[in-house]
Amino acid sequence: MIYLDNSATTLVKPKQVISAVNECLLHYSANPGRSGHNASIKCALMVEKTRENLAKHFGLSYPQNVIFTSNCTTALNYAIFGFIQKGDHIIATENEHNSVLRPIEKLKKEGKIDYDIACQSSPFGITLNDILPYVKHNTKMIICNHISNVNGAKANIKEIGKYCKDKNILFLLDCAQSCGHEKINMEEDGISLLAFAGHKGFYAPLAIGGLLINTTKQAQPTIYGGTGTNSLDLFQPDSLPEKLESGTLSTPLIMGLNAGLEFVETHFDEIQYKLDDLSTYLNFELNKLNFKVYTQPENSSGVIAFNIEDYESGQIASLLNEKYGICVRGGYHCAPLKHKALGTINQGAIRVSLSYFNTFSDIQKLLYALKNIKHKVFKMKD
Amino acid sequence: MIYLDNSATTLVKPKQVISAVNECLLHYSANPGRSGHNASIKCALMVEKTRENLAKHFGLSYPQNVIFTSNCTTALNYAIFGFIQKGDHIIATENEHNSVLRPIEKLKKEGKIDYDIACQSSPFGITLNDILPYVKHNTKMIICNHISNVNGAKANIKEIGKYCKDKNILFLLDCAQSCGHEKINMEEDGISLLAFAGHKGFYAPLAIGGLLINTTKQAQPTIYGGTGTNSLDLFQPDSLPEKLESGTLSTPLIMGLNAGLEFVETHFDEIQYKLDDLSTYLNFELNKLNFKVYTQPENSSGVIAFNIEDYESGQIASLLNEKYGICVRGGYHCAPLKHKALGTINQGAIRVSLSYFNTFSDIQKLLYALKNIKHKVFKMKD
Repeated sequence: MIYLDNSATTLVKPKQVISAVNECLLHYSANPGRSGHNASIKCALMVEKTRENLAKHFGLSYPQNVIFTSNCTTALNYAIFGFIQKGDHIIATENEHNSVLRPIEKLKKEGKIDYDIACQSSPFGITLNDILPYVKHNTKMIICNHISNVNGAKANIKEIGKYCKDKNILFLLDCAQSCGHEKINMEEDGISLLAFAGHKGFYAPLAIGGLLINTTKQAQPTIYGGTGTNSLDLFQPDSLPEKLESGTLSTPLIMGLNAGLEFVETHFDEIQYKLDDLSTYLNFELNKLNFKVYTQPENSSGVIAFNIEDYESGQIASLLNEKYGICVRGGYHCAPLKHKALGTINQGAIRVSLSYFNTFSDIQKLLYALKNIKHKVFKMKD
Repeated sequence: MIYLDNSATTLVKPKQVISAVNECLLHYSANPGRSGHNASIKCALMVEKTRENLAKHFGLSYPQNVIFTSNCTTALNYAIFGFIQKGDHIIATENEHNSVLRPIEKLKKEGKIDYDIACQSSPFGITLNDILPYVKHNTKMIICNHISNVNGAKANIKEIGKYCKDKNILFLLDCAQSCGHEKINMEEDGISLLAFAGHKGFYAPLAIGGLLINTTKQAQPTIYGGTGTNSLDLFQPDSLPEKLESGTLSTPLIMGLNAGLEFVETHFDEIQYKLDDLSTYLNFELNKLNFKVYTQPENSSGVIAFNIEDYESGQIASLLNEKYGICVRGGYHCAPLKHKALGTINQGAIRVSLSYFNTFSDIQKLLYALKNIKHKVFKMKD
């Protein structure tokens, strides 16, 4: 099997990640932060160490503002429902995932807020100029997908972040596809809120994510409950991370994430180099085959979308799976506005997404299969 | 180390659970339900198999109504925020955890709902008679803790369930402490909604939980986002489980839960016998020491609360940890109304909570330590 669906989740995990989960199940299995005994405290220390490492990785000065969630979707929901109030205005982009679009559409449908969608004018990704026309007096938040999960388009986050910082607008960055592949510094880049998926670019086990908070504005919780603190109080405690972390955390996943983060930091340049190299090669070859390629060669961080003529992408993905044992994703990628923008509402798109563990040979085998499929397609047409 | 804090989470996991997680990390690491290729499908099949096994275990006819959540707290929030609407009335009990009390208090504070708290009149647990005086014309939901996480009091769920079924009131059962220890059948017991924690009585890894839905009433999601279905639609799909499962699921935790569930079903009678035996013995001995024991000997499912005279429970728990390597939980247990009812608002309570992996010798060592502490306490007073 050749696995090229790493934007859904990285299939191959570094051995350090698997060892860390195992170590946790054997030796760190108490509940962190729920009791005062040594077994609980040593688990809590591992969790806090991971918060510190994530804060450091993302240029956030306050480790206690790292909120663990079960996935990136939950982190985005916490940010949107936590900070947005009645009467606020939001700007999102056409590159957003349903994990952003569905929460803001829900708020709009209830008559609580309004939002606008910025469209990408540059072929490479969203820029500040795409967003500026939509800014209103009550714009509270700009939500921007860093790297599109459909075609790898990359937003210019530095200029958007600087603008948000100057105008005191919350900047929520969706790093589901960029974390582990791109250098991101919340403080330097003006990012107020950062949602990430641990099980993708950080090679952590399914499914762990988080929200990093770099603003003094206060969030309301989405989930309420026990926090191990202020236990006699019927109200949620006000301090972070407890306020936004009700219920038991998953230490095995957090320890796996910590190991994955360490792996990524150790191999960062190699990962970037490999993704760039394989993406660029694949993009070049797909263009040579005259396929409809939706990814710019410059957007070479491992997500490449294309179609073969007008064939339904899901059918081609099924062929790759059944005849060649190659796993890519066809159809739609939970980003409806992006498909509209790319003109792929009818056929979806074949998405190849890479990880550090993919090889040149994986790409060659994919290309061989695609050439065969193309040949068959043309033969059928004759 | 002797671990007696299994109500927070079971520390020792069956080897089958650890193997299942490992197997998942090595061989089932694609994203279930997000792509159509074989790697994803084989993960989705494992997830669906676990849904089926949980539905069967809890007497629910619809496996698709098993919703996976990151913990029991999230499951309780989904049930409360999902089914309760403006103008509804809720009855909860004094035994509820903050994972119930904080969400309903939040809704009350916003002026959306009202709730009443039923108090336990029998020493053994909540009965229907405790609840009846609070029923109103607009009572939409009765929320009942099955086994108290503070002192093991056990609600008579059959009579409450029958009443709810007759009156068409939603019955939400919090099984955090009872699942894996008690036979529960949603259909026969009239339970509309059941929230469970996998990492306690089912011996799954931290942290996985779920909500089982046995009503045709429709829930609103708490978290919105990608579901792998209806991808082009800005609205959440209406079908279960997708409607309430936005974002990536944790296959390693779900496979661990499946193995834990199988372990529990295989050893169910032994587990019940052991918890009953050890609890009853410990309760008897604590009474002999003239401690203030808050657990009835009949409530012998492994949760025993007590205090030594008026000493702060946290101090005694710390002594047990530091001097004897015994892990129990002192202080407050996220159930403020229960502490009020037990008269332990000032000193909290020492809670011993057992699992199948505890031994008679663990209890003897605890008793030895407690006798020493008592002796020291009395000596200090002389």
